[in-house]
Amino acid sequence: MKPTNRTPRVIIIGGGFGGLEAAKRLKNNPVNVTLIDRKNHHTFQPLLYQVATAVLSPGQIASPIRRILRKAKNVEVLLGEVTGLDLENKKVVLQDEETVAFDYLIVAAGARHSYFGHDDWEDDAPGLKTVEDALEIRRRVLLAFELAEREAIQTGKHDPLNFVVIGGGATGVELAGAIAGIAKQALAKDFKAIDTREAKVTLFEGSDRVLGTFDDRLSDHAKRDLEELGVNVRLNSFVTDIRPGEVKVGDEWIDASVVLWATGVAASPVGKMLGAETDKAGRVLVEDDLTLKNTADVFVIGDMAHVEEENGELVPGVAPAAIQMARSAVANILRDLKNENRLPFKYEDKGSMATIGRNKAIFEFGRFKMSGFFAWLAWLVVHIITLIGFRNRLLVLTEWVWAYFTREHTARLITGDAEELQDALRFLSVHHGRGEKPEPRSTSNAESQED
Amino acid sequence: MKPTNRTPRVIIIGGGFGGLEAAKRLKNNPVNVTLIDRKNHHTFQPLLYQVATAVLSPGQIASPIRRILRKAKNVEVLLGEVTGLDLENKKVVLQDEETVAFDYLIVAAGARHSYFGHDDWEDDAPGLKTVEDALEIRRRVLLAFELAEREAIQTGKHDPLNFVVIGGGATGVELAGAIAGIAKQALAKDFKAIDTREAKVTLFEGSDRVLGTFDDRLSDHAKRDLEELGVNVRLNSFVTDIRPGEVKVGDEWIDASVVLWATGVAASPVGKMLGAETDKAGRVLVEDDLTLKNTADVFVIGDMAHVEEENGELVPGVAPAAIQMARSAVANILRDLKNENRLPFKYEDKGSMATIGRNKAIFEFGRFKMSGFFAWLAWLVVHIITLIGFRNRLLVLTEWVWAYFTREHTARLITGDAEELQDALRFLSVHHGRGEKPEPRSTSNAESQED
Repeated sequence: MKPTNRTPRVIIIGGGFGGLEAAKRLKNNPVNVTLIDRKNHHTFQPLLYQVATAVLSPGQIASPIRRILRKAKNVEVLLGEVTGLDLENKKVVLQDEETVAFDYLIVAAGARHSYFGHDDWEDDAPGLKTVEDALEIRRRVLLAFELAEREAIQTGKHDPLNFVVIGGGATGVELAGAIAGIAKQALAKDFKAIDTREAKVTLFEGSDRVLGTFDDRLSDHAKRDLEELGVNVRLNSFVTDIRPGEVKVGDEWIDASVVLWATGVAASPVGKMLGAETDKAGRVLVEDDLTLKNTADVFVIGDMAHVEEENGELVPGVAPAAIQMARSAVANILRDLKNENRLPFKYEDKGSMATIGRNKAIFEFGRFKMSGFFAWLAWLVVHIITLIGFRNRLLVLTEWVWAYFTREHTARLITGDAEELQDALRFLSVHHGRGEKPEPRSTSNAESQED
Repeated sequence: MKPTNRTPRVIIIGGGFGGLEAAKRLKNNPVNVTLIDRKNHHTFQPLLYQVATAVLSPGQIASPIRRILRKAKNVEVLLGEVTGLDLENKKVVLQDEETVAFDYLIVAAGARHSYFGHDDWEDDAPGLKTVEDALEIRRRVLLAFELAEREAIQTGKHDPLNFVVIGGGATGVELAGAIAGIAKQALAKDFKAIDTREAKVTLFEGSDRVLGTFDDRLSDHAKRDLEELGVNVRLNSFVTDIRPGEVKVGDEWIDASVVLWATGVAASPVGKMLGAETDKAGRVLVEDDLTLKNTADVFVIGDMAHVEEENGELVPGVAPAAIQMARSAVANILRDLKNENRLPFKYEDKGSMATIGRNKAIFEFGRFKMSGFFAWLAWLVVHIITLIGFRNRLLVLTEWVWAYFTREHTARLITGDAEELQDALRFLSVHHGRGEKPEPRSTSNAESQED
């Protein structure tokens, strides 16, 4: 595109790691930028599982996007939902049919979990991608303990507590480890009618090892660490059906007080609006410079982009990759404006890490591998440093030090209006054979359902 | 009641200031205690307005009830909803028709706002009693600014922002002052298309002064302080109708981006289940020892109890009163067990205080009156000390120091699922003359409604 006399407008869709980095890089450059997001806040997703497991509060890992971009005078932030894209006329359509025109478009709308065609499972097995997801998971986990306590007070006994996590990637491993920690330590002294330490946590993974993107030995290490925390790790186990209070693994139905979904990737539906070729997960196939095929001014970055490395491997859907793509897209836009040639995107692996429980982690960077306490310290330092905002860093570090020494999880509010709470309790009662049973949402095997 | 060989069971309904104090006082005494609450957390209501105005996070002013009572071995906590009371058979009925038997009952279920027979106003003018209320208010206040910014980006202009607070008591004054602070300082630099400092905040009070329970001169002082913050204080102004985007004051309809309700008291519906005489606000008339008339083992305390001082004045619905009533009820139960005579409840006024904006307050204790910065410091110390939990004290103090020096409000998340958010935006659009108009809920004057 030729530079014009008018200041070109760049629209960024999404305020995640990719979108935010693009906005920061465009600061003080000769462009006007509009960042559009459905939420008013950027979420630091790597720590979402700590909100879901009551260590941190939402406000400590999420910051208002316009606060972060306060000093970028040429960047405005618009809270809104993209409902359509008019690439021909170079316009983004918003929920109220208003349009915003662009010269360049950077699409960074991220991804959610995929339920592999079973979207009806989502109600019974929520995933973890947003602050709202995390609060819903926290609510279900804490309510399960509350319901068991109530049952024990009223009847002197209670049905066993079974937490099921589906998917042995980083999120699944982190959730399973943290829930085991809650049951074994954080809640143990607070419940008097039940013994929370008897709660079972089971992690189902379809492949033959957890954390499959890591080295074999680190996977084994992580599995042992999980088992030491009391997590029952079941490999080569595919979940074939889910209904309230139960999951089906292979042909076996298993009781589950709470089911959490931590597998599969489905790129944002904004991808479809581009009308481009996508892979099975809905990721958009892009050119070397991350632009949409047959366009020069529409970039797709982050979890939404299907980008292959030279060895044919897919660039992973992680924060550092999204940030690198944002930098590449912005650099090429600025090259355009200076009439320079664009350069192709190249992914640089910065290593990856995952935590297991209270004080263990694994860390891999090329040939360098580490596990245990020092890997956990490295994990802690990296996450504190990359967290956005000095105040958040201070608060999160305070909470971690507190949690480490007291072994307490303090952010244990169950919120939601009273009616919703009652519904949730009723929902959970199904499994405990009490209250009214809701209509089975998944019909297969519904006839054979027994309490 | 005669003591029996069996350990008597005391049931407490409600985990607010009264219920929690009763449970603490019964700790290590020869009774078994069950505390029942619909929420899993105790809320420090005096600081709720700071959650509503984005200074504090919910987790910093709310603590899990069972965590607070962890060390009280004879106290169990039950999350549940009381749906009925069977006083004859001395049983509390819960939502699943299960019952819990008691020897003594302490009813401390609190109060909500009264809409004076116009409950349909609640959707358009939420009150502030729970964490959920505070989050809803925060959402509406922040969304109003976001919507104006979006309008300004898309069209180059925006409708004026008008925040209306109804009721000039402590909550109303604190909300109005804090919202003015948000508009004038905390948000001013973050919005680029609108000038948040132009937002108007109006406080309507039906009587001839704000903070009517305080001394005349303190009321005047508070009014001046509010006006200095830019709040438009309108006394002798009764709100006669509310509909989306507008309030009617006397005969005049006034535009309102957000309306907040901070007046009126309606005791918990649990009061009605007692089948006793109540006053207009639903407060239960009780005997000298706070028991229900014609019973000796059912106490009603806190905001739910209609208790008169010797001078005929009503004991106010404040935390210190609820705490004193809890102590009186527990002391009389323990006297029963020791075959001693009961003593009547006597209210001791501990003084009262209210904050105005960032660093002013008024404080009154008998003849001692104080206003301005030092009253604010006193307010700060009292609230930090009485807040529950060392960790909360530490975090809240950190946030306050941060907010004081940076003038920022940092807990600015707008949460809620995307659809809800869209609905809220649509709701707010009504006032701005965009989007679809919802059905008017309040029918009077609906015909004459114009955009």
